[in-house]
Amino acid sequence: MQGELSDEKVMVAEPEADILGKGYGRKKGKLELSLEEAAFLFETGKIEIKEKEEKKLNLGDFLKHASQISPKFAVRYIVYRDLKERGYAVQPGRVDFWLYPRGAKPGEKPAKYFIRILSERDFLPLKALDALLVLARNMRKEPILAVVDEESDITYYELKEAKFESAEQMKEEEERKEGKAKATLLSDRVLLWDADLAENLHRNNFYGKLTKEKRLLLSLVESAYLMKRDMLEIAKNAEPLKPQTSNLKPLNFEQFIDYVNSIESDFMDKYGVYEDLRGKGLTVKTGFKFGSHFRVYTARQQKHSSYLIHVLPEEHVFSIPELSRAVRLAHGVKKRMIFAFRQKAGEERVIRYIDVGRMKL
Amino acid sequence: MQGELSDEKVMVAEPEADILGKGYGRKKGKLELSLEEAAFLFETGKIEIKEKEEKKLNLGDFLKHASQISPKFAVRYIVYRDLKERGYAVQPGRVDFWLYPRGAKPGEKPAKYFIRILSERDFLPLKALDALLVLARNMRKEPILAVVDEESDITYYELKEAKFESAEQMKEEEERKEGKAKATLLSDRVLLWDADLAENLHRNNFYGKLTKEKRLLLSLVESAYLMKRDMLEIAKNAEPLKPQTSNLKPLNFEQFIDYVNSIESDFMDKYGVYEDLRGKGLTVKTGFKFGSHFRVYTARQQKHSSYLIHVLPEEHVFSIPELSRAVRLAHGVKKRMIFAFRQKAGEERVIRYIDVGRMKL
Repeated sequence: MQGELSDEKVMVAEPEADILGKGYGRKKGKLELSLEEAAFLFETGKIEIKEKEEKKLNLGDFLKHASQISPKFAVRYIVYRDLKERGYAVQPGRVDFWLYPRGAKPGEKPAKYFIRILSERDFLPLKALDALLVLARNMRKEPILAVVDEESDITYYELKEAKFESAEQMKEEEERKEGKAKATLLSDRVLLWDADLAENLHRNNFYGKLTKEKRLLLSLVESAYLMKRDMLEIAKNAEPLKPQTSNLKPLNFEQFIDYVNSIESDFMDKYGVYEDLRGKGLTVKTGFKFGSHFRVYTARQQKHSSYLIHVLPEEHVFSIPELSRAVRLAHGVKKRMIFAFRQKAGEERVIRYIDVGRMKL
Repeated sequence: MQGELSDEKVMVAEPEADILGKGYGRKKGKLELSLEEAAFLFETGKIEIKEKEEKKLNLGDFLKHASQISPKFAVRYIVYRDLKERGYAVQPGRVDFWLYPRGAKPGEKPAKYFIRILSERDFLPLKALDALLVLARNMRKEPILAVVDEESDITYYELKEAKFESAEQMKEEEERKEGKAKATLLSDRVLLWDADLAENLHRNNFYGKLTKEKRLLLSLVESAYLMKRDMLEIAKNAEPLKPQTSNLKPLNFEQFIDYVNSIESDFMDKYGVYEDLRGKGLTVKTGFKFGSHFRVYTARQQKHSSYLIHVLPEEHVFSIPELSRAVRLAHGVKKRMIFAFRQKAGEERVIRYIDVGRMKL
């Protein structure tokens, strides 16, 4: 069978095209094949391809030609081939490809997924990731990222709006009854002195790190949260906070936040996410050992955390190896990797959580 | 026993000091304690502390005072306490602390390690990491990084000059006999057509990814290496390389590198490390799935790679979570994490490898 290369398409005369079956191309008078479809049919011996009025192309020339017309051709074709070889029906579509449920043919059932194809060298804005989720919801599809690495191996990722498993609600009221704890600011952490309050906050609500002497070392984010809820009182230092005020009124929340912002940029983004997660009844601890901001437990008696949460500015742009690293690490410790960001929604800011996981197709 | 706070030291009169034993302070007329030593002795009830001519301090005021005098006090003290509680002899020293072998006392044996203390919020230039290794070699100590996270947990890392286990030498001669392979450049990868050469390069030397049709997909770094060794010939494209030259002379190495540099910044740093590792007889593949540049096998029949190698510019500055993430990931997949960089040494550039691993003390 003969195809003719025409810009970014390969055209096959319709009477012949029918024997290719329903899986290929779109009919527009002739059958119009995408470059990937044409390459696959060429490589599997089903068609030959010539340039307009010219001699037949060999496979090498066709592939070279295709990658010059479309710089993404090579990675798209690698993914297309992989999916075909796994027995899936695939069709070029709006977001690179449509993927049909295993065994289904285009036309019989709607596509289940759409696939966005990336090369290891691409960059992916967080906003583009989010736009894929919005599109998926509108189109009732599930979005997949297919990343082709420099050695032409493919990693598939599923994208989801993060859903947190229902969490036991923390006993907020009980917490409050305990009264206000007095604490000392030590540079970038806070030391709480009352042994009973310390033990209670730690054992019931997993705040801080309890020392042998039953003092509680709190992180800045925990301290801010407890201050906001009127549970913690931090004495003002003569220095470095406000040299002019030498009275001992405790810091108020805004003063504390001002100080923290001076030693940790983007603190408010991180704090906003912490507060939101605590508000959902989740237990939130630092994710430092896993290179993320937080690790999250969904129940009190849980031994291992379920989620790693990394907070990003809305304008963040992922390098693909950065994404790979974060998801691989979470996967290796049996947690879900979730990227959180504060999104402007009119006057408001809402916190969004995107769950990215490895996927076996 | 009474100590007197004096700037960054606490002084104890000598006759009294003797009962503290050899583990604390330096004698300079009086016994001079560091803030961490003093805090530890205060907290464990061995001394009291007053300010010059003034009233006694309570522990909270002393800690607050110490952290205002020395912003690193809190993290230093957290590490000091942890080491003391683990039964080690520790002494403040040039690089934060000296650490003695377990059971040994200062004076009896020389210190085995020195410890550099970092907070999760610090930044660590690659050059500073390297300087620690140089210092360690000169002083015959082993360097340790102690990182205190925001919840006051400590992670200890050992630093080493990377030593690669002796590798089987690849059969370079055999490789060469095969002659020059013809290949096509497809945007950001290279396709090699000769089935015998493809299979040979892949099976014997682990180059590229072999397709079902026995074609070999090579990465750019592999292609550059094979070109340099005269084993690969890539036809020049009309576009996008050089529109004016329409003859079909193959690309030379420099032309190929120019092209690759246009799509991948820092390619030469990465290539330099690849060449160096291959030159050591190691098998080098992409580390993309682990978020690093390379994974390295030391023997041909090895199922899992032994090292992850990430190439950095000499001027790189680590954030501490970034370091934590990389080492945690490597550890989780039972590999060593190695950071490679090209270092200027006079006119020359040498490639240096720094091995950073988690350490149980």
